[in-house]
Amino acid sequence: MPNSSKTDRSHIKRHSERAHYDKESIYKIIDEAFICHVSFALDDQPFVIPTIHARSDDQILLHGSKGSRLLQVVKSGAPLSICVTHMDGLVLARSAMHSSMNYRSVVLFGTGEEITDNPKKLEAMEIFFEHLIPGRWRDVRHPNQKELDMTAVVAVDIEEASAKIRTGQPIDDEEDSSLPIWAGVVPFRLAAGEPEEEPGLNEGITLPDYLL
Amino acid sequence: MPNSSKTDRSHIKRHSERAHYDKESIYKIIDEAFICHVSFALDDQPFVIPTIHARSDDQILLHGSKGSRLLQVVKSGAPLSICVTHMDGLVLARSAMHSSMNYRSVVLFGTGEEITDNPKKLEAMEIFFEHLIPGRWRDVRHPNQKELDMTAVVAVDIEEASAKIRTGQPIDDEEDSSLPIWAGVVPFRLAAGEPEEEPGLNEGITLPDYLL
Repeated sequence: MPNSSKTDRSHIKRHSERAHYDKESIYKIIDEAFICHVSFALDDQPFVIPTIHARSDDQILLHGSKGSRLLQVVKSGAPLSICVTHMDGLVLARSAMHSSMNYRSVVLFGTGEEITDNPKKLEAMEIFFEHLIPGRWRDVRHPNQKELDMTAVVAVDIEEASAKIRTGQPIDDEEDSSLPIWAGVVPFRLAAGEPEEEPGLNEGITLPDYLL
Repeated sequence: MPNSSKTDRSHIKRHSERAHYDKESIYKIIDEAFICHVSFALDDQPFVIPTIHARSDDQILLHGSKGSRLLQVVKSGAPLSICVTHMDGLVLARSAMHSSMNYRSVVLFGTGEEITDNPKKLEAMEIFFEHLIPGRWRDVRHPNQKELDMTAVVAVDIEEASAKIRTGQPIDDEEDSSLPIWAGVVPFRLAAGEPEEEPGLNEGITLPDYLL
């Protein structure tokens, strides 16, 4: 994705002060998310489906069952739009109008292609694992040929993308600033809880370092 | 939305054991989320955009600036797909193949219509607030006519929808169950932090009960 790529479909008109078009901002948002939402259109009917993703250079990797509609459409090379969103907080202004949300989102456009070469599929699987749980790939039982054959892996070229970021406190109109109404931000984050081990786990297997 | 509505576009084929088509399951997932992802197609180009939503009976309410592309398309009555997703945990199987994610998601299909009547727009604003921060609406300075005029509110009829839910521990193949590999779930949730008050807040304004 060239840094300068920007056509009408990815140009942000509303709240343009929240818009970012540089790779660094865009890729950081993509890489910090566990899931994305992929949309495609069949005839005039749009679909949007959540799925696990990972990024490799200027491509988004997706995977799933060979039979899944999403993967079938993606590998057909149909135009796609993919969105990644982090909800960072509720922004409580004194006025309803200026109440908002803090968030970081990316909307990107591209087309996909299937990865059929076995070593490249395995490499993609490693990238998914390293994205979700760095360190896990070296522990886990790798896919065998039968499993690889059941799995479709696709790479979506990021043709263009934009990020939209809102941070910080509410901005009320001057005339509202002395109203006796609480204003501020309630921050949110996707928080991990304590790992819950599978009841059938062999004795003596301790929690791996990468989950501490 | 009739409970029985289900055509090919909302029929879940992969992991059909995770599929739910009843209103109660579907609406609970929608109502617990702060944001949804709305997709539409212009010519053959799909778009997917994150936005705040609320539900009123069998409709999804959306709002935004009158000039936003999303709102323009929604109010045109174009076919839409809307997705709501909660990421509930990483599912670490002993094998890469059975590693997964716990999640609750809804994909719905419908068409939108603008709400232009002032009292109904205000009612919709109240529903947004009650959805995001129950109790806030009675405190906040309500929109005036100028603000209402700048805001588009749309209602999307939920024509059909399906939910997909995965919970619980990984399910490894029998032959992998004694491998010396940690297996289990790392739960995740969208967690609220301590409210951060706006620095310009008048003295003596304390945190409202609904934020405690």
